[in-house]
Amino acid sequence: MFKEAVYHRPKNNYAYAYDQETLHIRLRTKKDDVQEVILISGDPYHWIDGKWQTNRLEMNKSGSDELFDYWFCELRPSQRRLRYCFELNDGKEKITYTEKGFFETPPIHDTKFHFCFPFLNSIDVFDAPDWVRDTVWYQIFPERFANGDKENDPHGVLPWASQDPTQDSFFGGDFQGVMDHLDYLENLGINGIYFTPIFKAHSNHKYDTIDYMEIDPQFGDKETFRTLVKECHKRGIRVMLDAVFNHSGFYFEPFQDVIKKEHDSKYKDWFHLREFPLKTEGIPNYDTFGFVASMPKLNTENPEVKAYLLKVATYWVKEFDIDGWRLDVANEVDHSFWREFRNAVKTVKPDTYILGEIWHDSIPWLQGDQFDAVMNYPFTDASIDYFAQNKINTKQFSNVITNVLHMYPETVNQVSFNLLDSHDTPRILTLADNNKDRVRLLYLFQLSFIGTPCIYYGDEIGMTGGEDPGCRKCMDWDSSNQDQQLFSFVQQLISFRKSIPAFGNRGKLQFINDDNSPNSLVYEKTTDEEKVIIIINNDHKSNKVRVPKLANKSCKELFSQSEQTFGDDVTIELAPFGYLAYHIV
Amino acid sequence: MFKEAVYHRPKNNYAYAYDQETLHIRLRTKKDDVQEVILISGDPYHWIDGKWQTNRLEMNKSGSDELFDYWFCELRPSQRRLRYCFELNDGKEKITYTEKGFFETPPIHDTKFHFCFPFLNSIDVFDAPDWVRDTVWYQIFPERFANGDKENDPHGVLPWASQDPTQDSFFGGDFQGVMDHLDYLENLGINGIYFTPIFKAHSNHKYDTIDYMEIDPQFGDKETFRTLVKECHKRGIRVMLDAVFNHSGFYFEPFQDVIKKEHDSKYKDWFHLREFPLKTEGIPNYDTFGFVASMPKLNTENPEVKAYLLKVATYWVKEFDIDGWRLDVANEVDHSFWREFRNAVKTVKPDTYILGEIWHDSIPWLQGDQFDAVMNYPFTDASIDYFAQNKINTKQFSNVITNVLHMYPETVNQVSFNLLDSHDTPRILTLADNNKDRVRLLYLFQLSFIGTPCIYYGDEIGMTGGEDPGCRKCMDWDSSNQDQQLFSFVQQLISFRKSIPAFGNRGKLQFINDDNSPNSLVYEKTTDEEKVIIIINNDHKSNKVRVPKLANKSCKELFSQSEQTFGDDVTIELAPFGYLAYHIV
Repeated sequence: MFKEAVYHRPKNNYAYAYDQETLHIRLRTKKDDVQEVILISGDPYHWIDGKWQTNRLEMNKSGSDELFDYWFCELRPSQRRLRYCFELNDGKEKITYTEKGFFETPPIHDTKFHFCFPFLNSIDVFDAPDWVRDTVWYQIFPERFANGDKENDPHGVLPWASQDPTQDSFFGGDFQGVMDHLDYLENLGINGIYFTPIFKAHSNHKYDTIDYMEIDPQFGDKETFRTLVKECHKRGIRVMLDAVFNHSGFYFEPFQDVIKKEHDSKYKDWFHLREFPLKTEGIPNYDTFGFVASMPKLNTENPEVKAYLLKVATYWVKEFDIDGWRLDVANEVDHSFWREFRNAVKTVKPDTYILGEIWHDSIPWLQGDQFDAVMNYPFTDASIDYFAQNKINTKQFSNVITNVLHMYPETVNQVSFNLLDSHDTPRILTLADNNKDRVRLLYLFQLSFIGTPCIYYGDEIGMTGGEDPGCRKCMDWDSSNQDQQLFSFVQQLISFRKSIPAFGNRGKLQFINDDNSPNSLVYEKTTDEEKVIIIINNDHKSNKVRVPKLANKSCKELFSQSEQTFGDDVTIELAPFGYLAYHIV
Repeated sequence: MFKEAVYHRPKNNYAYAYDQETLHIRLRTKKDDVQEVILISGDPYHWIDGKWQTNRLEMNKSGSDELFDYWFCELRPSQRRLRYCFELNDGKEKITYTEKGFFETPPIHDTKFHFCFPFLNSIDVFDAPDWVRDTVWYQIFPERFANGDKENDPHGVLPWASQDPTQDSFFGGDFQGVMDHLDYLENLGINGIYFTPIFKAHSNHKYDTIDYMEIDPQFGDKETFRTLVKECHKRGIRVMLDAVFNHSGFYFEPFQDVIKKEHDSKYKDWFHLREFPLKTEGIPNYDTFGFVASMPKLNTENPEVKAYLLKVATYWVKEFDIDGWRLDVANEVDHSFWREFRNAVKTVKPDTYILGEIWHDSIPWLQGDQFDAVMNYPFTDASIDYFAQNKINTKQFSNVITNVLHMYPETVNQVSFNLLDSHDTPRILTLADNNKDRVRLLYLFQLSFIGTPCIYYGDEIGMTGGEDPGCRKCMDWDSSNQDQQLFSFVQQLISFRKSIPAFGNRGKLQFINDDNSPNSLVYEKTTDEEKVIIIINNDHKSNKVRVPKLANKSCKELFSQSEQTFGDDVTIELAPFGYLAYHIV
């Protein structure tokens, strides 16, 4: 047995409270090395006649990636306390893995050897809002979605969609424009809008805030925004705003004050300044986002700054009833601030969704005390590589996705923000080299995956565009330019997601690798009641796919709504970029 | 190369802020598999002409345990941001380990592949009080240290040391008794006292609190305690109290109120009750410590309970100037409570030491937001197994200790509470089968190890005793019964620890394994300025020990204070249980 590959450490993705009573335990072993894993566990204080009372529970293999197998079990300790070890059997030998290393037989004469989940305290349980699990997001870059009110157009506004945007162009998108198209969004089926920043700022993207307490006048005023939120809520659509708390904009009053008054500014501790005068050209002599002088990093350790930003955070929730905060550059702000942020926001509205923008492994922020979720870029990257660009084969794709699913607790995965693209990346159709068949597969996978999916405005009608500013083109409202078929397809997937629990967030995902072609993907989504098996041909030629799991099953194919009964041998020929979804109740 | 053994994950013991500017990075590889590790790192935003600017830094092997090698480096990123990967060379191939897996060449064309330490925010830096690094603790069980005031003796008190204690006996130890012997403690050289509980309680051990705001009358009153703290401080001795916040005692007023008034008690949410009437015999129908009905678990999630306990926590710091809190059964209380506890206590006195009683892997509590340290039982177990009972050989011992040192950040190790025994275990001399030579070696190792050592009252004069109540005998003040040689030896080790930085907490420890006998231990403690090499013969027969590291060195042997110059071949014969410590400046 390859002992060095075996890994477990409690209180992260390997051992966590799933809910107030349930623990999830995972173990990692070298791929194809171990045949059986038994969890041996007991209450640390439950001794009878000098013997520690333990139970044995078989773990299931929950997935494999390139190097490892992952094992899983769940249990409900009666006293909410647990110590445990793992008995591993590779067919040749049985060994026990404990916190103190490996033993030939389980050292259950003393609890000190064992991993510990000391107490399942309710308040520590990771607890994201329930509604997020059933939400399909739609990301709106407000300057470019729709211009509904000419009165508030900024100086130098260009006629809508009259040209491709530059980094400095303004087209006058605003809240009225969004309101004018809420029927469109409702019709699509989305039930959450994520707005990139809307506060008073200098640029068209508004990530360089001037005033966190004001709506940017080009979008409307506070009353328009209040109405917008109400109109969204009427339609069952949640609203998430973008909090840019890592840095302010150049024209943020406190920063301007520091530039002018230097040592005498009462705001000089609001930033991380190294010397005066401030060097705002070239490499700045103060901390910034990246090396961008116009985005000075806020000193979120300063109690005044903290109080100000927490006021901002709670103000928009309390006064406007928003439902979520997406936190820009969340990883560079201190953990301490985010803990206070969570407390403050959840006190005002307990089911506010807190979403951090983090592109890398984010477990330190996802322990229940900071964020509910992060933007799931590892999912994005793998999906683009496989479906959009065919850079990796099915095996590699399922390896990465399995790895992604095992990076975090299931509770985290269920509210993970799964995007295919955004205002920070090229659009998916462009990434897929304008191949709409590939985009359909991307949507099928995204909308049948665990987490909370997000559609970037306009992707659903086939808009294109490269890196910023290409991906920030005006929404095309000319219906003759809109791909209605793609729109309907996305609409259909959203309706499956809503009506079939196994298709959506409630289904556990497992890849089924039956040695099919390197571009054939088969996976199942399972609840206690039902199952959906999805078959995808990620290939420009047709492929035969064997699916033994469907043998002798009766089911309904969701896209054709046709009933089907299979015999012993199930081999299905799929057209180029074909797909099927079998629903088994 | 054994890829499956390679491990790194940031923001724990593998990557952490050592101070406000310095990052420590560690990597784990299979033992003896990799010859060279290079850290490739850069500021994530530092790109020139489309190329990410990275540096290469060689990592050092910081130790090995049974299965793994550990690699270490430190660096000071100019912008306090870092992304990085590892280039591993086993002599046959070079591969790069990233957050996204292994690559043949470093994927530095895109930062997204790389591990990330996004920003070194000061407030998140683990920051234990400086003074703890230079503290040698002495644990006092107040009922048994000295009876200085007959006036406050409890009912049924027994004459001092007139018999071995039972679990219910009282001998009248008190604060005046401690004060009477502060000269003794000062003479021994300790500079911190850890008192087991002193608040009003039912038992002799006082872990069953009746009133957290009152001193137990058998120890004195608040004025006596205030004087005691002042007298300690005059002598440079810090005072740490025991906070039993997981559970109260049976006679804690709120619990009594619940027993009496049941549903009508205003305290019914102070505990975790399942039904009325409360079943206080047999298995209780409410949460308790273990299954002990007289120790009902406090509901630390209840804001009233929290406010009460935080008032307690700050009261004794603010009013009596205590220096530390040792937190009983700390692992079973919620993390959320401990975060507030830390904030509250550190606000009143920033350099208060917060020490959790946790016997298992404690990384979730040691991230800088909860505890400064935990009781280092893994150190205890290994030391007892090796020195006291010779159950493991030198190789096994150095493996376990290396593992212990790599479980946590260096910052945590430096304030780790290293005990050999306590009121919860047999005394070391008893564990060592009354072999004082073995006890000397235990002290030598403990007092030259990283962390903050603690001596259990009476061990230093050769007291014996098994499990509770055996280990809680009255301190023997009859000097003819005291082992003065052992006392002097401990005194000498403490003085080395204080006067020779490398001997104490400032020296980095490395085991030197030169294929000596299975009972010969050689290790070095190193600072930038000096080195101490310690040689121990953990054997009842004499042994020759080869120490090539001493070849051609001039040094002073600390115990004999003799100057010595070695030749090319250094072979030293040590008597049974002999030891030497060479100081090289």
